Amino acid sequence: MPDKQKELGGEGLRGQIAGTTGLCTVGKTGTGLTYRGYDISDLAKHAEFEEVAYLLLKGKLPTRTELASYKEKLISYRGLPMALKVVLEQIPADAHPMDVLRTGCSMLGNLEQEHGFGEEYDKADRLLALLPAIICYWYRYSHDGVRIETYCDQDSIGGYFLKMLTGETPSELHKQVMHCSLILYAEHEFNASTFAARVCASTLSDLYSCITAAIGTLRGPLHGGANEAAMAMIENWQSADEAEAGIMAMLANKDKIMGFGHAIYRESDPRNALIKKWSEKLAQEADDAVLYDISVRVEQVMKREKNLFCNADFFHASAYHFMKIPTKLFTPIFVMSRVTGWAAHVFEQRDHNRIIRPSAEYNGPEHQDWLPIDERH
Amino acid sequence: MPDKQKELGGEGLRGQIAGTTGLCTVGKTGTGLTYRGYDISDLAKHAEFEEVAYLLLKGKLPTRTELASYKEKLISYRGLPMALKVVLEQIPADAHPMDVLRTGCSMLGNLEQEHGFGEEYDKADRLLALLPAIICYWYRYSHDGVRIETYCDQDSIGGYFLKMLTGETPSELHKQVMHCSLILYAEHEFNASTFAARVCASTLSDLYSCITAAIGTLRGPLHGGANEAAMAMIENWQSADEAEAGIMAMLANKDKIMGFGHAIYRESDPRNALIKKWSEKLAQEADDAVLYDISVRVEQVMKREKNLFCNADFFHASAYHFMKIPTKLFTPIFVMSRVTGWAAHVFEQRDHNRIIRPSAEYNGPEHQDWLPIDERH
Repeated sequence: MPDKQKELGGEGLRGQIAGTTGLCTVGKTGTGLTYRGYDISDLAKHAEFEEVAYLLLKGKLPTRTELASYKEKLISYRGLPMALKVVLEQIPADAHPMDVLRTGCSMLGNLEQEHGFGEEYDKADRLLALLPAIICYWYRYSHDGVRIETYCDQDSIGGYFLKMLTGETPSELHKQVMHCSLILYAEHEFNASTFAARVCASTLSDLYSCITAAIGTLRGPLHGGANEAAMAMIENWQSADEAEAGIMAMLANKDKIMGFGHAIYRESDPRNALIKKWSEKLAQEADDAVLYDISVRVEQVMKREKNLFCNADFFHASAYHFMKIPTKLFTPIFVMSRVTGWAAHVFEQRDHNRIIRPSAEYNGPEHQDWLPIDERH
Repeated sequence: MPDKQKELGGEGLRGQIAGTTGLCTVGKTGTGLTYRGYDISDLAKHAEFEEVAYLLLKGKLPTRTELASYKEKLISYRGLPMALKVVLEQIPADAHPMDVLRTGCSMLGNLEQEHGFGEEYDKADRLLALLPAIICYWYRYSHDGVRIETYCDQDSIGGYFLKMLTGETPSELHKQVMHCSLILYAEHEFNASTFAARVCASTLSDLYSCITAAIGTLRGPLHGGANEAAMAMIENWQSADEAEAGIMAMLANKDKIMGFGHAIYRESDPRNALIKKWSEKLAQEADDAVLYDISVRVEQVMKREKNLFCNADFFHASAYHFMKIPTKLFTPIFVMSRVTGWAAHVFEQRDHNRIIRPSAEYNGPEHQDWLPIDERH
């Protein structure tokens, strides 16, 4: 690592200030995670996801009237353009679901351009309303050969997603879990995908370009996908004892165990207790005596052996599984939620913009003389 | 601007080191612009674009045999998958051409996934070969109702693009100009689009996600598009005198004049003289007595009045125009070229990766107590 970089705090811009935000604090003493000053526990316990989306996108918690008309608006935005359906039908069943969302978002940008920043709120609402339709339309068509109708009067985004996915009206419990889950994933300061959205926004590009960039960035295994990896791990085991033996073997083998620890949180992830509670309720509803117990045991062993805590992703795995959501759609749910934080960051970047153009430390060859082609080897 | 940011050099990460590269230097004393140590003037005067693509992607200038087989490979990669054609046919004629490329690249990622980083060179070559086909297939279909055949044995990428676009075999002069143009735009260190690609790559996402993010970032008017804006300006005038009067009026009006000055170069842009020479030759070939003269006069007036120099974009406007390229396809040509630099930066990021996750300065509200919905206003 070159000296200059060391002085500035190391690679990956860790600890370097890349801009300002009024949207979120992560890991500040005493508060854990806040959205516009509200504690994540208050939001996850009391709010609907649409209230939090409104808070992030419009700057304040909505009144009852504002919330009702916001939800009505989102419901009215659920129609998929025919051209987008044709595109989704061209994507094979073995595609990566994040590639589907990236392409669906990008395609929508061709069909419904953002002609000026005055349209930004409306375009963000449209994406928020339509992302569940995009993923479910592709999933049901490519996996089941069904062309679903994406208009639907489910009054929450989480309920809408479950209805699109399964065709069945979701229970109150499932809708509540989705509210909590979508709230927990909605925003997280300058994480890599949000930062990619802001870099894109800083050239004054359109919202679809910014969100497309963010989806592609979240796709990487170092960012999204931890809950999918946790699911792949815990479904290998048939009992809590088997899980404990499995974890001990993995630790002995120095395998990476997904869903634990965090780059910024040091003692616990404030989101874990919130989703864990719902995973327990879902286990009771599903009369499950295995997956939740396995998850709890893994949590205990990781604490005992490594003093590591569950992050937001770990109990999401079992929670989603109890609601019969296919594992490969876990990260797309993250997108349906985080699109609110991404868009809010794009608005913020546009409001006080300077193009994001850092410098690089050069470590390549010094001057090379031109070599005619027959003198090369 | 908060204090911390000031200390670190200001907003937009200006002057901050965000990583290392061996690909490029910009504005280093005495060299101007270098790719892997080779001066841009040497490359633009002596090389074909495919040699420079090889240099950036594979790390060295190719031998005659290597170059021949590389060009053969690129030619063999020109077939558009049927599903991608269907997608392109869904995009209306009034779409933004950069949105078309962004969507085409993203869609290709569904059809030909990068299953591991061992495939990265091959996927980059496929994109390099196919981007001209994507933009031309859409352009000809949406504007002329023609489904073009994208297999074609033109042995250079620039010639291939011109052939796809016009249906006519391009002249040697036009192919030479395209070599120079594509070489000049191929790489430029940590500009915003390249940095977006690296942020995306830093989560270990796939190449298509990185390039999609970069295309969306280049789309912004603060980044790509300056040559389009320059064209829109100069085609308003009928003579050099009229242009001078127009520029003087714009300066008096404090209008922004596109194609001049640069964030990093202080005295001149080393790329300007190289493309200007070709613009002059094209003017002679086209027997044009107006557009080139207008361009030269604008250059003189800007130097005289503001001591500002032309950047790479300004004489590109007239050069492309003389080759009958529609103005709205100027920035897509930038993409066909810069995809080499973007991909090379992605490879580099992957080789020594740490996730790019900066910090933010918080300027939002302090702790806010939860407010039940009926207490809000």
